[in-house]
Amino acid sequence: MKTNEDILTAATRHLNANPTASMAGIASAIGISRATLHRHFVSREALLHALGDRATECWAGSLRSAGIDAATASGDPGELRAALGALLNAYVVDADEHGFALTDHFVNHLPDLVARGEELEEREVAFYEACQRAGVLRADLPARWFSSAVYGLLVGARESLRRGEVARRDLGRILLTTFLDGTGPPAGP
Amino acid sequence: MKTNEDILTAATRHLNANPTASMAGIASAIGISRATLHRHFVSREALLHALGDRATECWAGSLRSAGIDAATASGDPGELRAALGALLNAYVVDADEHGFALTDHFVNHLPDLVARGEELEEREVAFYEACQRAGVLRADLPARWFSSAVYGLLVGARESLRRGEVARRDLGRILLTTFLDGTGPPAGP
Repeated sequence: MKTNEDILTAATRHLNANPTASMAGIASAIGISRATLHRHFVSREALLHALGDRATECWAGSLRSAGIDAATASGDPGELRAALGALLNAYVVDADEHGFALTDHFVNHLPDLVARGEELEEREVAFYEACQRAGVLRADLPARWFSSAVYGLLVGARESLRRGEVARRDLGRILLTTFLDGTGPPAGP
Repeated sequence: MKTNEDILTAATRHLNANPTASMAGIASAIGISRATLHRHFVSREALLHALGDRATECWAGSLRSAGIDAATASGDPGELRAALGALLNAYVVDADEHGFALTDHFVNHLPDLVARGEELEEREVAFYEACQRAGVLRADLPARWFSSAVYGLLVGARESLRRGEVARRDLGRILLTTFLDGTGPPAGP
Protein backbone atom coordinates (compact mmCIF):
# COMPACT_ATOMS: atom_id res chain seq x y z
CA MET A 1 0.00 0.00 0.00
CA LYS A 2 1.65 3.21 -1.12
CA THR A 3 1.08 6.45 0.78
CA ASN A 4 0.52 9.86 -0.79
CA GLU A 5 4.12 10.71 0.12
CA ASP A 6 5.54 7.61 -1.58
CA ILE A 7 3.62 8.36 -4.75
CA LEU A 8 4.64 11.99 -4.71
CA THR A 9 8.30 11.06 -4.31
CA ALA A 10 8.15 8.59 -7.20
CA ALA A 11 6.19 11.02 -9.39
CA THR A 12 8.68 13.82 -8.70
CA ARG A 13 11.56 11.57 -9.67
CA HIS A 14 9.82 10.66 -12.93
CA LEU A 15 8.92 14.27 -13.77
CA ASN A 16 12.49 15.40 -13.03
CA ALA A 17 13.63 13.18 -15.88
CA ASN A 18 10.49 13.47 -18.05
CA PRO A 19 8.95 16.85 -17.36
CA THR A 20 6.23 16.56 -19.98
CA ALA A 21 4.96 13.16 -18.71
CA SER A 22 1.17 12.76 -18.58
CA MET A 23 -0.74 11.25 -15.64
CA ALA A 24 -0.90 7.95 -17.57
CA GLY A 25 2.86 8.09 -18.18
CA ILE A 26 3.59 8.87 -14.53
CA ALA A 27 1.32 6.06 -13.27
CA SER A 28 2.93 3.55 -15.60
CA ALA A 29 6.47 4.68 -14.74
CA ILE A 30 5.91 4.36 -11.00
CA GLY A 31 4.08 1.06 -11.29
CA ILE A 32 0.56 1.94 -10.19
CA SER A 33 -2.69 2.06 -12.12
CA ARG A 34 -3.98 5.30 -13.49
CA ALA A 35 -7.04 4.95 -11.27
CA THR A 36 -4.83 4.69 -8.16
CA LEU A 37 -2.84 7.77 -9.16
CA HIS A 38 -6.08 9.69 -9.70
CA ARG A 39 -7.38 8.56 -6.31
CA HIS A 40 -4.34 10.23 -4.71
CA PHE A 41 -4.23 13.29 -6.99
CA VAL A 42 -7.38 14.26 -8.85
CA SER A 43 -5.47 15.88 -11.70
CA ARG A 44 -1.97 16.58 -13.03
CA GLU A 45 -2.41 20.12 -11.68
CA ALA A 46 -3.17 18.79 -8.19
CA LEU A 47 -0.09 16.55 -8.33
CA LEU A 48 2.09 19.45 -9.49
CA HIS A 49 0.71 21.66 -6.74
CA ALA A 50 1.59 19.04 -4.11
CA LEU A 51 5.04 18.64 -5.62
CA GLY A 52 5.56 22.43 -5.61
CA ASP A 53 4.44 22.55 -1.97
CA ARG A 54 7.04 20.00 -1.05
CA ALA A 55 9.79 21.77 -3.02
CA THR A 56 8.93 25.00 -1.17
CA GLU A 57 9.07 23.19 2.18
CA CYS A 58 12.51 21.89 1.24
CA TRP A 59 13.66 25.37 0.33
CA ALA A 60 12.45 26.65 3.72
CA GLY A 61 14.19 23.70 5.41
CA SER A 62 17.48 24.60 3.71
CA LEU A 63 17.29 28.22 4.87
CA ARG A 64 16.69 26.89 8.38
CA SER A 65 19.40 24.22 8.40
CA ALA A 66 21.97 26.66 6.99
CA GLY A 67 21.15 28.98 9.88
CA ILE A 68 20.87 32.10 7.74
CA ASP A 69 18.64 34.05 10.15
CA ALA A 70 21.08 33.64 13.05
CA ALA A 71 24.01 34.51 10.78
CA THR A 72 22.14 37.57 9.49
CA ALA A 73 21.46 38.70 13.08
CA SER A 74 25.08 38.12 14.14
CA GLY A 75 26.59 40.12 11.29
CA ASP A 76 29.77 38.10 11.82
CA PRO A 77 31.77 37.51 8.60
CA GLY A 78 32.84 34.00 9.62
CA GLU A 79 29.30 32.94 10.51
CA LEU A 80 27.91 34.50 7.35
CA ARG A 81 30.51 32.79 5.18
CA ALA A 82 29.79 29.42 6.80
CA ALA A 83 26.04 29.87 6.41
CA LEU A 84 26.49 30.80 2.73
CA GLY A 85 28.48 27.63 2.10
CA ALA A 86 25.92 25.52 3.96
CA LEU A 87 23.06 27.16 2.08
CA LEU A 88 24.52 26.56 -1.37
CA ASN A 89 25.33 22.96 -0.51
CA ALA A 90 21.78 22.36 0.72
CA TYR A 91 20.36 24.08 -2.38
CA VAL A 92 22.33 21.82 -4.71
CA VAL A 93 20.67 18.79 -3.08
CA ASP A 94 17.23 20.47 -3.32
CA ALA A 95 17.78 21.38 -6.98
CA ASP A 96 18.60 17.78 -7.77
CA GLU A 97 15.59 16.42 -5.87
CA HIS A 98 13.10 19.02 -7.06
CA GLY A 99 14.54 19.96 -10.44
CA PHE A 100 11.17 19.82 -12.14
CA ALA A 101 9.63 22.38 -9.77
CA LEU A 102 12.64 24.67 -10.14
CA THR A 103 11.56 25.85 -13.59
CA ASP A 104 8.06 24.49 -14.22
CA HIS A 105 5.84 27.33 -15.43
CA PHE A 106 2.66 25.98 -13.85
CA VAL A 107 4.23 25.38 -10.43
CA ASN A 108 6.00 28.74 -10.49
CA HIS A 109 2.76 30.63 -11.07
CA LEU A 110 0.59 29.10 -8.35
CA PRO A 111 -0.38 32.13 -6.23
CA ASP A 112 0.10 30.47 -2.82
CA LEU A 113 3.54 29.16 -3.79
CA VAL A 114 4.52 32.54 -5.25
CA ALA A 115 3.53 34.22 -1.96
CA ARG A 116 5.43 31.66 0.13
CA GLY A 117 8.44 31.97 -2.19
CA GLU A 118 8.46 35.73 -1.77
CA GLU A 119 8.58 35.40 2.01
CA LEU A 120 11.53 33.02 1.79
CA GLU A 121 13.26 35.27 -0.69
CA GLU A 122 12.98 38.25 1.64
CA ARG A 123 14.93 36.29 4.26
CA GLU A 124 17.47 35.31 1.64
CA VAL A 125 17.89 38.91 0.53
CA ALA A 126 18.29 40.11 4.14
CA PHE A 127 21.00 37.48 4.48
CA TYR A 128 22.80 38.64 1.32
CA GLU A 129 22.59 42.24 2.54
CA ALA A 130 24.19 41.20 5.82
CA CYS A 131 26.90 39.43 3.78
CA GLN A 132 27.49 42.68 1.89
CA ARG A 133 27.76 44.73 5.09
CA ALA A 134 30.24 42.21 6.51
CA GLY A 135 32.37 42.24 3.36
CA VAL A 136 31.54 38.61 2.49
CA LEU A 137 29.78 39.64 -0.75
CA ARG A 138 30.47 42.57 -3.07
CA ALA A 139 28.58 45.69 -2.13
CA ASP A 140 28.40 47.08 -5.70
CA LEU A 141 25.73 44.67 -6.97
CA PRO A 142 22.09 44.54 -5.81
CA ALA A 143 21.44 41.93 -3.06
CA ARG A 144 18.34 40.83 -4.98
CA TRP A 145 20.54 39.99 -7.93
CA PHE A 146 22.47 37.52 -5.76
CA SER A 147 19.22 35.73 -5.06
CA SER A 148 18.42 35.50 -8.79
CA ALA A 149 22.00 34.55 -9.67
CA VAL A 150 21.98 31.70 -7.14
CA TYR A 151 18.62 30.52 -8.45
CA GLY A 152 19.96 30.60 -12.00
CA LEU A 153 23.19 28.82 -11.11
CA LEU A 154 21.10 26.09 -9.47
CA VAL A 155 19.12 25.69 -12.69
CA GLY A 156 22.44 25.39 -14.54
CA ALA A 157 23.88 23.02 -11.93
CA ARG A 158 20.86 20.79 -12.12
CA GLU A 159 21.09 20.73 -15.92
CA SER A 160 24.78 19.90 -15.72
CA LEU A 161 24.07 17.05 -13.30
CA ARG A 162 21.20 15.71 -15.40
CA ARG A 163 23.49 15.54 -18.41
CA GLY A 164 26.27 13.89 -16.43
CA GLU A 165 28.75 16.73 -17.02
CA VAL A 166 29.71 17.30 -13.42
CA ALA A 167 30.03 14.78 -10.58
CA ARG A 168 27.39 15.19 -7.88
CA ARG A 169 29.99 15.25 -5.10
CA ASP A 170 31.85 18.15 -6.75
CA LEU A 171 28.83 20.28 -7.50
CA GLY A 172 28.51 22.12 -4.17
CA ARG A 173 32.13 23.24 -4.34
CA ILE A 174 31.90 24.17 -8.04
CA LEU A 175 28.77 26.21 -7.45
CA LEU A 176 30.24 28.03 -4.45
CA THR A 177 33.51 28.92 -6.17
CA THR A 178 31.72 30.00 -9.35
CA PHE A 179 29.40 32.22 -7.34
CA LEU A 180 32.06 33.71 -5.05
CA ASP A 181 35.23 33.71 -7.13
CA GLY A 182 33.86 33.80 -10.66
CA THR A 183 35.27 32.02 -13.69
CA GLY A 184 37.99 34.47 -14.63
CA PRO A 185 41.62 33.65 -13.79
CA PRO A 186 42.65 34.38 -10.17
CA ALA A 187 43.69 38.02 -9.71
CA GLY A 188 47.47 38.45 -10.02
CA PRO A 189 49.72 38.73 -6.96
CA MET B 1 -3.41 41.26 -42.12
CA LYS B 2 -0.97 39.74 -39.70
CA THR B 3 1.76 37.39 -40.88
CA ASN B 4 2.87 34.22 -39.13
CA GLU B 5 5.91 36.14 -37.89
CA ASP B 6 3.83 38.96 -36.40
CA ILE B 7 1.63 36.49 -34.58
CA LEU B 8 4.59 34.50 -33.33
CA THR B 9 6.24 37.66 -31.99
CA ALA B 10 3.09 38.74 -30.18
CA ALA B 11 2.43 35.23 -28.85
CA THR B 12 6.01 34.95 -27.57
CA ARG B 13 5.68 38.25 -25.76
CA HIS B 14 2.45 37.10 -24.12
CA LEU B 15 3.87 33.70 -23.12
CA ASN B 16 6.99 35.37 -21.68
CA ALA B 17 4.74 37.15 -19.20
CA ASN B 18 2.06 34.42 -18.92
CA PRO B 19 3.75 31.10 -19.56
CA THR B 20 0.68 28.98 -18.82
CA ALA B 21 -1.60 30.91 -21.24
CA SER B 22 -3.93 28.75 -23.36
CA MET B 23 -4.49 29.25 -27.10
CA ALA B 24 -7.71 31.13 -26.27
CA GLY B 25 -5.81 33.35 -23.81
CA ILE B 26 -3.04 34.03 -26.33
CA ALA B 27 -5.49 34.87 -29.12
CA SER B 28 -7.42 37.24 -26.90
CA ALA B 29 -4.25 38.91 -25.56
CA ILE B 30 -2.86 39.58 -29.04
CA GLY B 31 -6.19 40.72 -30.44
CA ILE B 32 -7.04 38.02 -32.96
CA SER B 33 -9.77 35.40 -32.98
CA ARG B 34 -9.08 31.91 -31.78
CA ALA B 35 -9.90 30.65 -35.29
CA THR B 36 -7.26 32.93 -36.82
CA LEU B 37 -4.64 31.77 -34.32
CA HIS B 38 -5.48 28.15 -35.10
CA ARG B 39 -5.22 28.85 -38.83
CA HIS B 40 -1.61 29.94 -38.27
CA PHE B 41 -0.73 27.31 -35.65
CA VAL B 42 -2.82 24.15 -35.50
CA SER B 43 -2.12 23.59 -31.80
CA ARG B 44 -0.39 25.09 -28.78
CA GLU B 45 2.35 22.51 -29.37
CA ALA B 46 2.84 23.73 -32.96
CA LEU B 47 3.04 27.33 -31.74
CA LEU B 48 5.57 26.39 -29.06
CA HIS B 49 7.63 24.46 -31.58
CA ALA B 50 7.77 27.50 -33.89
CA LEU B 51 8.68 29.72 -30.96
CA GLY B 52 11.44 27.30 -29.92
CA ASP B 53 12.75 27.26 -33.50
CA ARG B 54 13.02 31.01 -33.46
CA ALA B 55 14.73 31.09 -30.06
CA THR B 56 17.28 28.56 -31.35
CA GLU B 57 17.88 30.69 -34.46
CA CYS B 58 18.50 33.68 -32.20
CA TRP B 59 20.96 31.70 -30.11
CA ALA B 60 22.82 30.69 -33.30
CA GLY B 61 22.74 34.33 -34.44
CA SER B 62 24.31 35.47 -31.18
CA LEU B 63 27.16 32.95 -31.47
CA ARG B 64 27.74 34.28 -34.99
CA SER B 65 27.52 37.98 -34.19
CA ALA B 66 29.85 37.60 -31.20
CA GLY B 67 32.37 35.98 -33.54
CA ILE B 68 33.14 33.07 -31.23
CA ASP B 69 34.39 30.71 -33.95
CA ALA B 70 36.97 33.21 -35.23
CA ALA B 71 38.04 34.01 -31.67
CA THR B 72 38.33 30.29 -30.89
CA ALA B 73 40.48 29.78 -33.98
CA SER B 74 42.68 32.78 -33.16
CA GLY B 75 43.40 31.71 -29.59
CA ASP B 76 44.14 35.37 -28.86
CA PRO B 77 43.24 36.42 -25.26
CA GLY B 78 42.08 39.89 -26.33
CA GLU B 79 39.86 38.53 -29.09
CA LEU B 80 38.48 35.82 -26.83
CA ARG B 81 37.72 38.30 -24.05
CA ALA B 82 35.96 40.64 -26.49
CA ALA B 83 33.93 37.77 -27.96
CA LEU B 84 32.92 36.62 -24.47
CA GLY B 85 31.66 40.08 -23.59
CA ALA B 86 29.78 40.35 -26.90
CA LEU B 87 28.28 36.88 -26.44
CA LEU B 88 26.97 37.55 -22.95
CA ASN B 89 25.52 40.88 -24.01
CA ALA B 90 23.75 39.24 -26.96
CA TYR B 91 22.49 36.42 -24.74
CA VAL B 92 20.94 38.85 -22.28
CA VAL B 93 18.88 40.32 -25.12
CA ASP B 94 17.90 36.82 -26.31
CA ALA B 95 16.94 35.73 -22.79
CA ASP B 96 14.66 38.72 -22.47
CA GLU B 97 13.04 38.17 -25.88
CA HIS B 98 12.73 34.38 -25.60
CA GLY B 99 12.45 33.94 -21.84
CA PHE B 100 9.58 31.49 -22.17
CA ALA B 101 11.59 29.12 -24.39
CA LEU B 102 14.59 29.32 -22.07
CA THR B 103 12.99 27.03 -19.46
CA ASP B 104 9.82 25.61 -21.01
CA HIS B 105 9.80 21.84 -20.53
CA PHE B 106 7.94 21.08 -23.75
CA VAL B 107 10.17 23.27 -25.94
CA ASN B 108 13.33 21.96 -24.28
CA HIS B 109 12.44 18.35 -25.03
CA LEU B 110 11.60 18.64 -28.74
CA PRO B 111 14.11 16.25 -30.35
CA ASP B 112 15.03 18.48 -33.32
CA LEU B 113 15.63 21.46 -31.04
CA VAL B 114 17.63 19.35 -28.60
CA ALA B 115 19.84 18.19 -31.49
CA ARG B 116 20.31 21.71 -32.81
CA GLY B 117 21.04 22.95 -29.29
CA GLU B 118 23.71 20.31 -28.82
CA GLU B 119 25.48 21.44 -31.99
CA LEU B 120 25.48 25.04 -30.82
CA GLU B 121 26.66 24.02 -27.39
CA GLU B 122 29.62 22.14 -28.84
CA ARG B 123 30.77 25.41 -30.45
CA GLU B 124 30.22 27.23 -27.18
CA VAL B 125 32.24 24.63 -25.27
CA ALA B 126 35.08 24.79 -27.83
CA PHE B 127 35.07 28.56 -27.30
CA TYR B 128 35.23 28.21 -23.50
CA GLU B 129 38.07 25.71 -23.85
CA ALA B 130 39.98 28.21 -26.02
CA CYS B 131 39.30 30.84 -23.30
CA GLN B 132 40.78 28.46 -20.73
CA ARG B 133 43.91 27.81 -22.84
CA ALA B 134 44.38 31.56 -23.29
CA GLY B 135 44.00 32.27 -19.56
CA VAL B 136 40.71 34.18 -20.05
CA LEU B 137 38.77 31.60 -18.00
CA ARG B 138 39.88 29.42 -15.10
CA ALA B 139 41.31 26.09 -16.18
CA ASP B 140 40.31 24.23 -13.00
CA LEU B 141 36.59 23.97 -13.80
CA PRO B 142 35.05 21.94 -16.67
CA ALA B 143 34.38 23.99 -19.83
CA ARG B 144 30.93 22.39 -20.04
CA TRP B 145 30.13 23.79 -16.63
CA PHE B 146 30.71 27.31 -18.00
CA SER B 147 28.07 26.63 -20.60
CA SER B 148 25.57 25.48 -17.95
CA ALA B 149 26.53 28.33 -15.61
CA VAL B 150 25.94 30.93 -18.35
CA TYR B 151 22.61 29.33 -19.21
CA GLY B 152 21.63 29.38 -15.55
CA LEU B 153 22.74 32.97 -15.01
CA LEU B 154 20.61 33.95 -18.03
CA VAL B 155 17.59 32.27 -16.44
CA GLY B 156 18.33 34.25 -13.28
CA ALA B 157 18.93 37.48 -15.22
CA ARG B 158 15.66 37.10 -17.06
CA GLU B 159 13.82 36.48 -13.79
CA SER B 160 15.47 39.53 -12.27
CA LEU B 161 14.43 41.67 -15.24
CA ARG B 162 10.88 40.32 -15.23
CA ARG B 163 10.53 41.30 -11.58
CA GLY B 164 12.03 44.72 -12.17
CA GLU B 165 14.95 44.16 -9.81
CA VAL B 166 17.70 45.15 -12.24
CA ALA B 167 17.70 47.79 -14.97
CA ARG B 168 17.84 46.34 -18.47
CA ARG B 169 20.76 48.55 -19.46
CA ASP B 170 22.87 47.31 -16.53
CA LEU B 171 22.17 43.64 -16.98
CA GLY B 172 24.87 42.80 -19.53
CA ARG B 173 27.56 44.31 -17.31
CA ILE B 174 26.17 42.70 -14.14
CA LEU B 175 26.03 39.28 -15.80
CA LEU B 176 29.57 39.56 -17.16
CA THR B 177 31.12 40.69 -13.88
CA THR B 178 29.19 38.05 -11.89
CA PHE B 179 30.37 35.35 -14.29
CA LEU B 180 33.99 36.49 -14.52
CA ASP B 181 34.71 38.13 -11.17
CA GLY B 182 32.19 36.40 -8.90
CA THR B 183 30.29 37.98 -6.05
CA GLY B 184 32.95 37.77 -3.35
CA PRO B 185 34.87 40.92 -2.39
CA PRO B 186 37.78 41.81 -4.72
CA ALA B 187 40.95 39.91 -3.78
CA GLY B 188 43.12 42.00 -1.44
CA PRO B 189 46.32 43.72 -2.67
